[in-house]
Amino acid sequence: MADPTTAQDWDSLWLGANIATMVHGRYQLLEQGAIAVKNGHIAWLGMVADVPEHSVMHTYQLEGGLITPGLVDCHTHLVFAGNRANEFEMRLNGASYQEIAKAGGGIMSSVHATRAASVEQLLASAEPRLKSLMADGITTLEIKSGYGLSTASEIAMLQAAKGLLDLHPVDIKTTCLAAHALPPEFAERADDYIDYLCDELLPKVAQLGLADAVDAFCEGIGFSVAQTERYFKAAKVLGLPVKLHAEQLSALGGSAMAASHQALSADHLEYVTEDDVKAMAKAGTVAVILPGAFYVLREKQRPPIELFRKHGVPMAIATDANPGTAPVLSLRLMMNMACTLFAMTPEEALAGVTLNGAKALGMADQVGSLEVGKRANFVHWNVSSPAELSYWIGGQLLQQRVYNGEICL
Amino acid sequence: MADPTTAQDWDSLWLGANIATMVHGRYQLLEQGAIAVKNGHIAWLGMVADVPEHSVMHTYQLEGGLITPGLVDCHTHLVFAGNRANEFEMRLNGASYQEIAKAGGGIMSSVHATRAASVEQLLASAEPRLKSLMADGITTLEIKSGYGLSTASEIAMLQAAKGLLDLHPVDIKTTCLAAHALPPEFAERADDYIDYLCDELLPKVAQLGLADAVDAFCEGIGFSVAQTERYFKAAKVLGLPVKLHAEQLSALGGSAMAASHQALSADHLEYVTEDDVKAMAKAGTVAVILPGAFYVLREKQRPPIELFRKHGVPMAIATDANPGTAPVLSLRLMMNMACTLFAMTPEEALAGVTLNGAKALGMADQVGSLEVGKRANFVHWNVSSPAELSYWIGGQLLQQRVYNGEICL
Ligand SMILES: [Zn+2]
Ligand SMILES: [Zn+2]
Repeated sequence: MADPTTAQDWDSLWLGANIATMVHGRYQLLEQGAIAVKNGHIAWLGMVADVPEHSVMHTYQLEGGLITPGLVDCHTHLVFAGNRANEFEMRLNGASYQEIAKAGGGIMSSVHATRAASVEQLLASAEPRLKSLMADGITTLEIKSGYGLSTASEIAMLQAAKGLLDLHPVDIKTTCLAAHALPPEFAERADDYIDYLCDELLPKVAQLGLADAVDAFCEGIGFSVAQTERYFKAAKVLGLPVKLHAEQLSALGGSAMAASHQALSADHLEYVTEDDVKAMAKAGTVAVILPGAFYVLREKQRPPIELFRKHGVPMAIATDANPGTAPVLSLRLMMNMACTLFAMTPEEALAGVTLNGAKALGMADQVGSLEVGKRANFVHWNVSSPAELSYWIGGQLLQQRVYNGEICL
Repeated sequence: MADPTTAQDWDSLWLGANIATMVHGRYQLLEQGAIAVKNGHIAWLGMVADVPEHSVMHTYQLEGGLITPGLVDCHTHLVFAGNRANEFEMRLNGASYQEIAKAGGGIMSSVHATRAASVEQLLASAEPRLKSLMADGITTLEIKSGYGLSTASEIAMLQAAKGLLDLHPVDIKTTCLAAHALPPEFAERADDYIDYLCDELLPKVAQLGLADAVDAFCEGIGFSVAQTERYFKAAKVLGLPVKLHAEQLSALGGSAMAASHQALSADHLEYVTEDDVKAMAKAGTVAVILPGAFYVLREKQRPPIELFRKHGVPMAIATDANPGTAPVLSLRLMMNMACTLFAMTPEEALAGVTLNGAKALGMADQVGSLEVGKRANFVHWNVSSPAELSYWIGGQLLQQRVYNGEICL
């Protein structure tokens, strides 16, 4: 029996798996490790042989396998109405972009469907997608608005995202991406739309406490660097951190501008320059790598992984889950694509969906690695080595998902 | 009450989903369809409104969704020992092929591990992979040997595959792929190895009834067309149909030679010529498209989809699930890759994993489409249109898997 004067008192103890703690973004593998949980947090972590004297409510004796931190998907557009499978099929049947646009396709089809949907409908349609991500190991994710493009509809999207948080055992960070595209009401008046966002939409979203951050699509077909910066300044006045879709299709320097505003992350980055990367390094801005959109769009220009390595920019990997360029429902598959398409290492891939994903959400103090004091969010996988998480393509490798110390799946 | 003199007497009736029957390889979509099952076979199929007078034991009233035939994965190497995640990781950490070979990597690492494993161990290691495929909608799959490369070890692999069939509600066709690679005992004596296969291994496998077909790897780094043909002739004497890994990395004409032996399928085919395709069309040989290996190997030369269309060669799509070039555990993801990487249409992709997959296994009279008299193997998916099965990347879309009329998952 445990000596009550010195023994630890735990809620649960997990024994018998290998543990990739991902402290400092490295595997730091504990072979035959042990994790003790108390009040939803990690109370003790080490080798089975070193477990101290304790009392515990539940002991989980695992038959091997691997434990990693719960996965963090730091860039998703999970809330939207409709889907664009029809457009996908039209294109493969030879329809031109003009024909698809005529048939109501493209991002505006998502905007129209999303505007027509209630908060409840948006939530219900996102729910199976969230369940797919959770079944693949997610314990934290970010959800962006950006298919409403009006105050009421962006708010509805963010409310749906917050509603998912209330219903499911998962962390959700919400991001206002009102500067995603130009709505038809503001056709050819991008600056007026930015004014509207700064003067009306962002203040309202901030007042309601619906967004944890603010994002924009800075691109030739999106918003200019100057427009984006104006919008970022409004966000900062409201106390909201920023992040940016940058350099996906061309090099505009949005990522360096975002870094100058201490952006949490700059995302996509296929065309980022070394100067941009230096600016990101200096600001601590995370590079979010999105191989799903690269794959879907059959792009050729890869994000410069070696520059991020050289300058010590943390790389996260995310699904970008969205109905147009990335109908992706598996973050683990994005680990494989980051390795296969971008030659990232499996260790970088795992860091990209754990500690660096957490950094991109400003949550690295709470989640993303397995350390005493952090939340007890972890996954027990039916694999023996962490490289297997990137190696297998598809498949159900998850055995158990633990969120705040509780088995939730 | 049903009139016993005219009413149909069914075991189960499924109502309320859309049904893509895939008859003749087309969607043939029934909106609000109904399927009646009797003795594991489809007894009636049509619109809900047209269901005839009947008595039935169980009625399943579905809330929408889509029913398709159970998926057929007609090319897998699912049985093997070990995995090659370590090699995958070494390569991404910059190791050369020589260094990996030195460390015991490459196909020979799978051969060594497989030879060292018992039938029970081979079966146990394949089981979670099989479960992943089933969770993604498979009701029929093919499993090849080819990592034993000796009579005893090839037999062990085929016995493991047959053992999986006994334990799981799924059809398994076994293929003897003894001509997969040259084992070390026959180094630089490929013709002697082929003699051994023809004189000893194949007759033994045939005698034990362990193989439904015979396959080879015809390639510069595999066996020549002449060697393969000698092996095929031995297979045919034993009454075993043939199929071939052909034109994956170079154009050797193996596919035309295979067609001249009425091969069930020729597989990979990146470098196939129009003459090969014509020969396949004439022989009824199915083209098996394997986008997973193409993706993993970062190949550039795509199989000529337009030639298969032009000459009416049925295209199947398979996982090629194997530890080296395709650690793929989702056939639905291969549908997406066939569309994304090879510009196949979603309808072709679905035909490729249903009716044409069944053709490639010589089973199109029993499975692969939903028709009265065929086996009641089908999947109920949480999607509304068949294009969504190719559109979503990852995710758990399967609601229920029905095998021989029973819900099995
Ligand atoms: Zn995005
Ligand atoms: Zn193969």
